Amino acid sequence: MTQISVIGSGSDHAVRAEEVGLLLAERGATVVCGGLGEVMAAAARGAKSAGGTTIGILPGESRAEANEWIDHAVATGVGHARNLAVVASGDAVIAVGGRWGTLAEIGFARVLGRYVVILEPGLEIEDVPRASTPAEAVELALAAVR
Amino acid sequence: MTQISVIGSGSDHAVRAEEVGLLLAERGATVVCGGLGEVMAAAARGAKSAGGTTIGILPGESRAEANEWIDHAVATGVGHARNLAVVASGDAVIAVGGRWGTLAEIGFARVLGRYVVILEPGLEIEDVPRASTPAEAVELALAAVR
Amino acid sequence: MTQISVIGSGSDHAVRAEEVGLLLAERGATVVCGGLGEVMAAAARGAKSAGGTTIGILPGESRAEANEWIDHAVATGVGHARNLAVVASGDAVIAVGGRWGTLAEIGFARVLGRYVVILEPGLEIEDVPRASTPAEAVELALAAVR
Amino acid sequence: MTQISVIGSGSDHAVRAEEVGLLLAERGATVVCGGLGEVMAAAARGAKSAGGTTIGILPGESRAEANEWIDHAVATGVGHARNLAVVASGDAVIAVGGRWGTLAEIGFARVLGRYVVILEPGLEIEDVPRASTPAEAVELALAAVR
Repeated sequence: MTQISVIGSGSDHAVRAEEVGLLLAERGATVVCGGLGEVMAAAARGAKSAGGTTIGILPGESRAEANEWIDHAVATGVGHARNLAVVASGDAVIAVGGRWGTLAEIGFARVLGRYVVILEPGLEIEDVPRASTPAEAVELALAAVR
Repeated sequence: MTQISVIGSGSDHAVRAEEVGLLLAERGATVVCGGLGEVMAAAARGAKSAGGTTIGILPGESRAEANEWIDHAVATGVGHARNLAVVASGDAVIAVGGRWGTLAEIGFARVLGRYVVILEPGLEIEDVPRASTPAEAVELALAAVR
Repeated sequence: MTQISVIGSGSDHAVRAEEVGLLLAERGATVVCGGLGEVMAAAARGAKSAGGTTIGILPGESRAEANEWIDHAVATGVGHARNLAVVASGDAVIAVGGRWGTLAEIGFARVLGRYVVILEPGLEIEDVPRASTPAEAVELALAAVR
Repeated sequence: MTQISVIGSGSDHAVRAEEVGLLLAERGATVVCGGLGEVMAAAARGAKSAGGTTIGILPGESRAEANEWIDHAVATGVGHARNLAVVASGDAVIAVGGRWGTLAEIGFARVLGRYVVILEPGLEIEDVPRASTPAEAVELALAAVR
């Protein structure tokens, strides 16, 4: 089954992240995220609202820190290094909002050869494609996987 | 949902690992493992034979290395350090066979306060309880979680 | 003792990286880097040419992969996740050239609150200061630490 | 230069750990440890008392948590997963006291093919050689490296 990682942060981006999660679930893709709040929670909530499946890859040592929309929680125990696991576990990556941690994830995703699309407005990074709507971001990510 | 980590290695232990996976699935627990071969594959296969759910936490950077009985694969990219994630992601841990990598996992599990039971014959580690059958190991692990 | 991380990649940047390493050593700072080739080797070589000290933080499981100018090699075994250790171990960070892995390091450095300066020409990242010469980059990094 | 990792924990073991550190330094080996307290601090203190060199590989994101006898601190940011780096960075490993975290380190050391010697009294692990004095432990570790 296709797994798409949704990364990012910022409470302003929750509506778009939720739509990304919902659309991924409708298309049959599992949503992978960092398992905590803001964009991570919104994407997982969107996926669950459409009956989808969610995986949360946490920085800490306990599953208890996962948000309530995570079906399968992995507690890595490796702190920010779990960002590598978040993008490595997706067949493609969608970035919604975000700042320094998201920059690290996009860097890792591209080191690993994963397709990354940034949902506007978002980080400005050379050579990373952008989408203007959640639907377009999901379309591009799934097209890159096929 | 309860997540139980099954750790260990050695092709001699596949039959018992498979029974552990099957029994965990029958009891409604998700099986977490390292996602590769031998005990990891057998435990996942057993879980799937009973309609259960499996999570594989891989050392490498690609989901493709997961065995075919893994439902949800996490590619951590951190090599042997993924052993920490394997045991942190379980509410309790069952060790089947195993050697040095399993020793590392048991050490980490106890650092994190996770209950560990060793299915006989297996590693000899002071202060770690033992079970003589897969059924007993599963019973002890689930009892420790409740 | 002050530790400054030098990150980046690309064989075109060796001359500038070597000068950064040399200047850091002359100023009494230990050079921390990823321990492998290109910018990492050049920075370490520069530091050693001025009698400085170098630490290489490697992705693999063996010290043998360190370049010959590394005094103290740490084999992390965690692959690309060692990028987190490289920037966490510096009091400030200088980026010379670089691409996706360097982007990940800059992201992590800023997550951790480390000062980062990019030596021109180099990556274009909003809100990260730039220096036009190795001397200026070293000056800015050391000033940020004091 | 030879690097020997000293692992373990427990305040009861400080005297022996300090002697191990001192003897390693006298023999010209750099002492690698986890950089924190108890056995880690004692080993580093012993090495410094003989004019040796010490490397501390920390679990957290800041060099500030290193004990005062650490010359070169690496902040890995990966929590307990830094145990892998501690043993991977030594050419051989000496265990003084210790409990679950030390068990994890011994497991990892043997996964990586590192020679491990346990200084008595200490953990009981099958197939891991034991030494009855700090001098013997140091001798065995250095002999294994040559």
